Amino acid sequence: MSYTLPEFLAHALALEHEAAERYLELADMMEAHRNDEVATVFRDMNRFSRMHHDEIRARVGAVALPQLKSWQYRWRTPPEVGGEEAFDYMLEPYHALRYARENEVRAMEYYRSVAEESQDAEVKRLAAEFSGEESEHVAALDKWIAQTPRPAASWAADPDSATPAA
Amino acid sequence: MSYTLPEFLAHALALEHEAAERYLELADMMEAHRNDEVATVFRDMNRFSRMHHDEIRARVGAVALPQLKSWQYRWRTPPEVGGEEAFDYMLEPYHALRYARENEVRAMEYYRSVAEESQDAEVKRLAAEFSGEESEHVAALDKWIAQTPRPAASWAADPDSATPAA
Repeated sequence: MSYTLPEFLAHALALEHEAAERYLELADMMEAHRNDEVATVFRDMNRFSRMHHDEIRARVGAVALPQLKSWQYRWRTPPEVGGEEAFDYMLEPYHALRYARENEVRAMEYYRSVAEESQDAEVKRLAAEFSGEESEHVAALDKWIAQTPRPAASWAADPDSATPAA
Repeated sequence: MSYTLPEFLAHALALEHEAAERYLELADMMEAHRNDEVATVFRDMNRFSRMHHDEIRARVGAVALPQLKSWQYRWRTPPEVGGEEAFDYMLEPYHALRYARENEVRAMEYYRSVAEESQDAEVKRLAAEFSGEESEHVAALDKWIAQTPRPAASWAADPDSATPAA
């Protein structure tokens, strides 16, 4: 995973763009569900992602970037099957926050591994910086998750409650 | 999961559009990797998805469709983390075919559950028909998977080889 700078910048741009889109969806859902407090959390996260995207875009300038494949930057889907079940599941602020957290952790770990493995000094520096930003997002989401009531275990497939305390 | 017809059609359109885009990515990757045979499989699947999408679009006509959330129709990402690892992993025809199969199965099961649970006769009929089409795609992919050499287990995180024979 030793990227050139254009490869790394392409990933970072795509990750931030994807995050911004997903946070907007989550914010809209929470708003439709009359949870303005959690909607505001997601709108803030959307704004951070867009700002970060614009900063990276400025850094890219006229550098030609490679085309990425969707699975290299897209958020994972929630653990449930698609369709109405996932929709109902995600209406719970607790699950929506966990979903966001899982994807932020994935981004954080991605940046951290690039920072550790890259041979390019500038890629290393940027990846370490971005990893730090993602870890702040994870911390912010953790704070919100701690304040959010966990829904009654009516979700048989809830991966959190299904995890043994090993 | 008892949809109205517009809700169901919106899901079906989104699923087919997503599938078409992913098959195009997979075909391009296989082609870049000089595997024309598997590239052709994915180009065929792309064409089927586009044809199906167009048929559903014709069925929709002027019906207003609801806006869906990404997690309701998007393909799951491969099991690996994003970035270069997933890219290398997906270069293997075997893994690319398994990835496609997993998502086709998910679509098939989605349609089947709608067909079983819907109260609307037309939704039931269409969902059963679409489920049948997806199961044909699964069968086609199974045929290809059976003919495709399984890569040496250099992927520590390969979920297939990690599955215990329980």
